[in-house]
Amino acid sequence: MSTRTSSPKHLKLGFVLHGVGAGWGDWRHEQALADGSVNFRFYTEQAQLAEKGCFDFLFVADSVHITERSSPHYLNRFEPLTILSALAAVTQHIGLVGTVTASYSEPFTVARQFASLDHVSGGRAGWNVVTSWLDGSARNYSRQEHYAHDVRYRLAHEHLFVVQGLWDSWEDDALTRNKATGQFFDPAKLHRLDHQGEFFQVEGPLNIARSRQGQPVVFQAGASDDGKTFAAQRADAIFFHADTLEEAQAYYRDVKARVVAAGRDPGQVYLLPGIRPIVGRTAQEAEEKYETLAALVPIENAIAALARPFNDHDFSKYPLDEPFPDVGDLGRNSQQAASDRIKQIAAETGWTLREVALWFARPKRTFVGSAEQVADEIQRWFEQGAADGFNFFEALPNTSLKDFVELVVPLLQARGIYRQDYEAQATLRDLLKLPFPINRHARVASPALAERLTPA
Amino acid sequence: MSTRTSSPKHLKLGFVLHGVGAGWGDWRHEQALADGSVNFRFYTEQAQLAEKGCFDFLFVADSVHITERSSPHYLNRFEPLTILSALAAVTQHIGLVGTVTASYSEPFTVARQFASLDHVSGGRAGWNVVTSWLDGSARNYSRQEHYAHDVRYRLAHEHLFVVQGLWDSWEDDALTRNKATGQFFDPAKLHRLDHQGEFFQVEGPLNIARSRQGQPVVFQAGASDDGKTFAAQRADAIFFHADTLEEAQAYYRDVKARVVAAGRDPGQVYLLPGIRPIVGRTAQEAEEKYETLAALVPIENAIAALARPFNDHDFSKYPLDEPFPDVGDLGRNSQQAASDRIKQIAAETGWTLREVALWFARPKRTFVGSAEQVADEIQRWFEQGAADGFNFFEALPNTSLKDFVELVVPLLQARGIYRQDYEAQATLRDLLKLPFPINRHARVASPALAERLTPA
Repeated sequence: MSTRTSSPKHLKLGFVLHGVGAGWGDWRHEQALADGSVNFRFYTEQAQLAEKGCFDFLFVADSVHITERSSPHYLNRFEPLTILSALAAVTQHIGLVGTVTASYSEPFTVARQFASLDHVSGGRAGWNVVTSWLDGSARNYSRQEHYAHDVRYRLAHEHLFVVQGLWDSWEDDALTRNKATGQFFDPAKLHRLDHQGEFFQVEGPLNIARSRQGQPVVFQAGASDDGKTFAAQRADAIFFHADTLEEAQAYYRDVKARVVAAGRDPGQVYLLPGIRPIVGRTAQEAEEKYETLAALVPIENAIAALARPFNDHDFSKYPLDEPFPDVGDLGRNSQQAASDRIKQIAAETGWTLREVALWFARPKRTFVGSAEQVADEIQRWFEQGAADGFNFFEALPNTSLKDFVELVVPLLQARGIYRQDYEAQATLRDLLKLPFPINRHARVASPALAERLTPA
Repeated sequence: MSTRTSSPKHLKLGFVLHGVGAGWGDWRHEQALADGSVNFRFYTEQAQLAEKGCFDFLFVADSVHITERSSPHYLNRFEPLTILSALAAVTQHIGLVGTVTASYSEPFTVARQFASLDHVSGGRAGWNVVTSWLDGSARNYSRQEHYAHDVRYRLAHEHLFVVQGLWDSWEDDALTRNKATGQFFDPAKLHRLDHQGEFFQVEGPLNIARSRQGQPVVFQAGASDDGKTFAAQRADAIFFHADTLEEAQAYYRDVKARVVAAGRDPGQVYLLPGIRPIVGRTAQEAEEKYETLAALVPIENAIAALARPFNDHDFSKYPLDEPFPDVGDLGRNSQQAASDRIKQIAAETGWTLREVALWFARPKRTFVGSAEQVADEIQRWFEQGAADGFNFFEALPNTSLKDFVELVVPLLQARGIYRQDYEAQATLRDLLKLPFPINRHARVASPALAERLTPA
């Protein structure tokens, strides 16, 4: 299968496009653009800056249900496939990774839209497959009840199977386009899927062929047990969350073992924790930046933020300075890992509701320091089995990326753990050193395929 | 309701982005790019050329089912929302109109994606609502049977109702974004839809606010009786097909009367026939171009082309030089108007299968001539109650648009029936002189609204 992989000597970096910021109070920061989440000029600037910093990909998160209690960065924002398609036109090298829920989308449409983005961008598309944890999502999609947690993962498996099957509808040399003979394509190399499954029945073929990278790259963010197994079996790159090196190492060991158990090469599945570096010219300056940011999340926002992992539960009815309330199984069927973790922290620390809420909603202190300190910490995680790279969130909106590209990226490059520049014409797979996926229907190696198949 | 409409003194022009061409043999033309339908550079060039020609909008057609018998221009092409989003980034003024089927899409996703395109483009989005005529579409979307013709239109009505309802989730002054007070939005101006209908149950609100043009413009292409009524009731602009002035006038009278019957202003619903001008420096040169093009559709392609309106029926089994076969009700539940029309032509003319197929699949002779002749014909249709404008298909791929922009557009401008240039910052509604749609929830006229509401 593998053709031109290598061990990940260079760490991988994604940049999370979050508009007004990825936290509750970020939009209030003086540098933040309060309309950032629907400001295409701002997205363009950020995308081009990330490309200047040689990031592997841009990442757009998503969700499909809001209420008046949702965080500002969820309320009013671009839809992933449309904004990434627009950004494809104003960038040249960087990957374009978008989130689409398997639970509330049609595989035929998802396959088409990512394939189309892949063609527009010259092979730079990636799909972050999520299952949607919010109960309310169902109510925006004509369903009375959200799928149960285990059903969502069964559905996601099948959905992804269908999408990847559709992506292979056309063999890479199927489109002959011979003006002289009039043969536009070779019908023997166009394939129906004829999928009949538990959730989907899809005939195919897809009405768009494969791009230069064969198929879009698959991302996942499994945190629950089902989620981690799914990610280990199916994803090329996996996002996760960890507050400390040890926590990240534990996740890394766990999921790499699952990758091996799934019969896959652990060197070809990347684990990318989210980080929110705050870089100062001095450690002191970084600490001041951190304090400014934390102060932007007042307790009422922090309480509101807790609602999301607990299925939109209203925590404002509990006393603030008493122990975190017992909410029973709430959250088990929505964002299971996050709600479990909050309960666990509350139990281990004995914190009050106020303390838990502020811990949850305010930025964490990991990766806060001078450029050297942040580079050190990144290198430590990368070299000590905690991460194959990172998904970068801006701690200070409209500021942290600039600081990072200017101050930290040159250090990582000097240390030889990060690319100096893009190769011309590289696809997202090329950037990530992922193998080219041979079309499942390819029976005879064409010259183009033979070239791809030659071991590097 | 209306704020700044005017009678359409200027004709409206759309340009159909068709990649390899809109006909069976177009891709074989020497000027055609055989990979045009997935070539972003080519789409960019065409979009920018149409903008140079002051067109009102770009239009991307669509369908969601192919077989090995499908025309080359259906087989392998960009998906509308992704390609239009990319083109938004490389154009400044021109509208961006994409086709999405109501029969096989989720209103929440459709509302989001068009709203997002609308924000990316500064208010230039339009949705062409179709119901999908191809039986096979169902089999790509986990349904055993295609919806019956009347059900499809009932569904489309409800789908559009939901989408437009979601588009109004946020009043135009709902997002206060006050960094000092911490109020990001006014909850009283965010509205759930809480739709409970026959086909859809959608809670809302939408997670993206309205753009500068309020809502994307709605296009439709009703040809059947149900289709024409739907279009007259709901669309801002309507595509149709006519081979002659008289045919166009009949459609125009019919549908404008339906618009009036629906209680709407017929001056605010535009009827836009598709045209495929072939412009020569002389009439003779135009005729030669026409002949070259017709020769690119051999009889076997023409026979294959007939399959589509007749629900993928295989016409190759009938004798070519005998009268058009009796296929009974075939096509009534797919592309009703097209199949009816073919049967009618066959009956009226007594043509053989060969003659009917070539008439159907080869380009028509309307709008073939010198620049003056083509401009005359356009003006005649526009001024004699046949059209409010046109949807321009390239007869000669990668050639006809250049000819038209260079030779015909200046004549139309000189005659005062077409814009000289774009106004700065115009939305698609502004270009089309369509009224700004006041948000259905707006109870108190804000200053911004008051300005919009002031009669021009």
